[in-house]
Amino acid sequence: MNVNYMKRALELAKLGIGYVNPNPLVGAVIVKDGKIISEGYHQFYGGPHAEINAFKNTIEDVKGATMYVTLEPCSHYGKTPPCAQEIVKKGISKVVIAMRDPNPIVSGKGIKILKENKIEVIYGVLEEEAKKLNEIFIKYITEKVPFCILKTAMTLDGKIACYTGDSKWITNEFSRKYVHELRHRVSGIMVGIETVFMDNPRLTTRLKDKKGNSPIRIVVDSKARIPLDSNVLNKDLEGNTIIATTEFAQENKIKSLKEMGLDVIVTPIKDNKVDLNYLMKELGKINIDSVLLEGGSTLNYSALNEGIVDKVIFFIAPKILGGINAKTPVGGQGKEYVKDAFKLYDLKMSRFEEDFMIQGYIRKRE
Amino acid sequence: MNVNYMKRALELAKLGIGYVNPNPLVGAVIVKDGKIISEGYHQFYGGPHAEINAFKNTIEDVKGATMYVTLEPCSHYGKTPPCAQEIVKKGISKVVIAMRDPNPIVSGKGIKILKENKIEVIYGVLEEEAKKLNEIFIKYITEKVPFCILKTAMTLDGKIACYTGDSKWITNEFSRKYVHELRHRVSGIMVGIETVFMDNPRLTTRLKDKKGNSPIRIVVDSKARIPLDSNVLNKDLEGNTIIATTEFAQENKIKSLKEMGLDVIVTPIKDNKVDLNYLMKELGKINIDSVLLEGGSTLNYSALNEGIVDKVIFFIAPKILGGINAKTPVGGQGKEYVKDAFKLYDLKMSRFEEDFMIQGYIRKRE
Repeated sequence: MNVNYMKRALELAKLGIGYVNPNPLVGAVIVKDGKIISEGYHQFYGGPHAEINAFKNTIEDVKGATMYVTLEPCSHYGKTPPCAQEIVKKGISKVVIAMRDPNPIVSGKGIKILKENKIEVIYGVLEEEAKKLNEIFIKYITEKVPFCILKTAMTLDGKIACYTGDSKWITNEFSRKYVHELRHRVSGIMVGIETVFMDNPRLTTRLKDKKGNSPIRIVVDSKARIPLDSNVLNKDLEGNTIIATTEFAQENKIKSLKEMGLDVIVTPIKDNKVDLNYLMKELGKINIDSVLLEGGSTLNYSALNEGIVDKVIFFIAPKILGGINAKTPVGGQGKEYVKDAFKLYDLKMSRFEEDFMIQGYIRKRE
Repeated sequence: MNVNYMKRALELAKLGIGYVNPNPLVGAVIVKDGKIISEGYHQFYGGPHAEINAFKNTIEDVKGATMYVTLEPCSHYGKTPPCAQEIVKKGISKVVIAMRDPNPIVSGKGIKILKENKIEVIYGVLEEEAKKLNEIFIKYITEKVPFCILKTAMTLDGKIACYTGDSKWITNEFSRKYVHELRHRVSGIMVGIETVFMDNPRLTTRLKDKKGNSPIRIVVDSKARIPLDSNVLNKDLEGNTIIATTEFAQENKIKSLKEMGLDVIVTPIKDNKVDLNYLMKELGKINIDSVLLEGGSTLNYSALNEGIVDKVIFFIAPKILGGINAKTPVGGQGKEYVKDAFKLYDLKMSRFEEDFMIQGYIRKRE
């Protein structure tokens, strides 16, 4: 067993970012006589699994070889035949696995098939890294609701815009490019109606050299006040837009939106607003495994308060704007006491030139 | 020449932090035959200079030795005789200097004396580090106004308190301890009257094992509304308190404050407030070389806007509070456009356990 082969398998898995949702990111490496004889990864949703691609990508005899794979091989007939059986058939003698399948219904079954067929199995190698890589899949497969990442960009003094509303640009081009990487990673991008009014964004993924699935745009708009000529509703944009609203919306407006080809989700009313937990469940039903929540201030607070947020990513620009009336990343009513604040765990800091990025998780990891 | 001796001299200089203001921090090392034969540093304001202490701290013959000193030896009779002449007298053959004296009136004169007496002089060794260490002294000696550090502590979403005013505690004990180190470093701690109303702080330096000069407390209070029983006015506190006010203040109140033994500085009115530039000049006149500005929101904005701030230190706790009415570190009117934001330079990030600390400078360094 050599941990470097698993590192390589994790690298391969990452090549699927933006193309496999709501499937997991998986990479596989086949090693024989101390040499990598093949590699594969899960390339796109519905396509062959990493193990199958690794078998395809070699003309060498894999009999007696060791396979390194970042996720337990599957045991069930889905869109493809079970990988565990394919591994048996090919005569692989040892399988090294980073993490077990997080799906409680099938977890351990792939390992069982391998062991029953006298294949040596080692698992738990770089397990933490593999779990981090598939944090979206793990949440989605176990809870059937999207993994939600709250992303915001502010000045060092906590402003997402000037008191006048001007917000171009808080962060630098490198941070903004990374936001497009984040958008590329997820299945949905969510904003509140306030952001549509203020910034009129398009919410598309603009990355050179990468054409993934276009994330679905979701506008939370309890009264369906969105102007029909908003950029986000432009028919020429790739991918769909969903308007999440409530019965506060006028029926005519909902009809117009539907006639434009938009999906409208009407949720129950919660605190005079869209019921975000209900919405997340509905999004989960239509294969949305992940949502990048891009503000504004009011929606961000509601999302945190309703408990739909899993991870936060704050970009911090080395600037100070001031302004008692300037918007901050998280508004709403706010917590009454510091002791009741939303606490963040497993924090990490990165730099994009002079900008900082701090990320953390809302829940403690087990 | 060995740069490690200069590193040692810089370390020694730091031992004077909190005791030498408004003098510079200076360390000196004497090296002979590849061995340190003595060390010294400037220990307290009015006390012997680093070079003199280094001579005192050895019984060995320093003739022909090399001296490493973090600041150009002085050439003038101040509270002590000129060090340059003392170095000549002792027969030192070589002097390595980190930085020249920043005081334009004397800069280069010490070096001149040494050279005229056939002593070999090298300067500019670890100059950046030396300048950073004495950033307070450099500003004060050249401009005669205090070096001002804006310090604040906020949640990741940019709140210094809940909307209710609760603010205990945003940051952890390690960050708070470091704030006391910062207070120990400076000659004055400045707050606005809002902070006195909200937090009723004592503004003392609470550090075990360190008894420095107690920094002077400065309350900016344009109408002299400060309650006479405020903690910051307590007679039992070490060191003085200054009230900075304007002619908006009632004469009776000023009289009462003076009768309590407090210093009152009446400044001209600027934008209906204390003229902060005037105040800084006045503070400079009474030997205050440095001020730690500890908020609140309104005063911080005024200070930035009036251009009195040199450096900012933001503590960021891994918490989210939310609240459209919660106070942020910098309030006031605020900038109209992002392009006009106060920009920060030379940024540095540190961690105090889970808290982050970001520091930067308002002006580009030359």
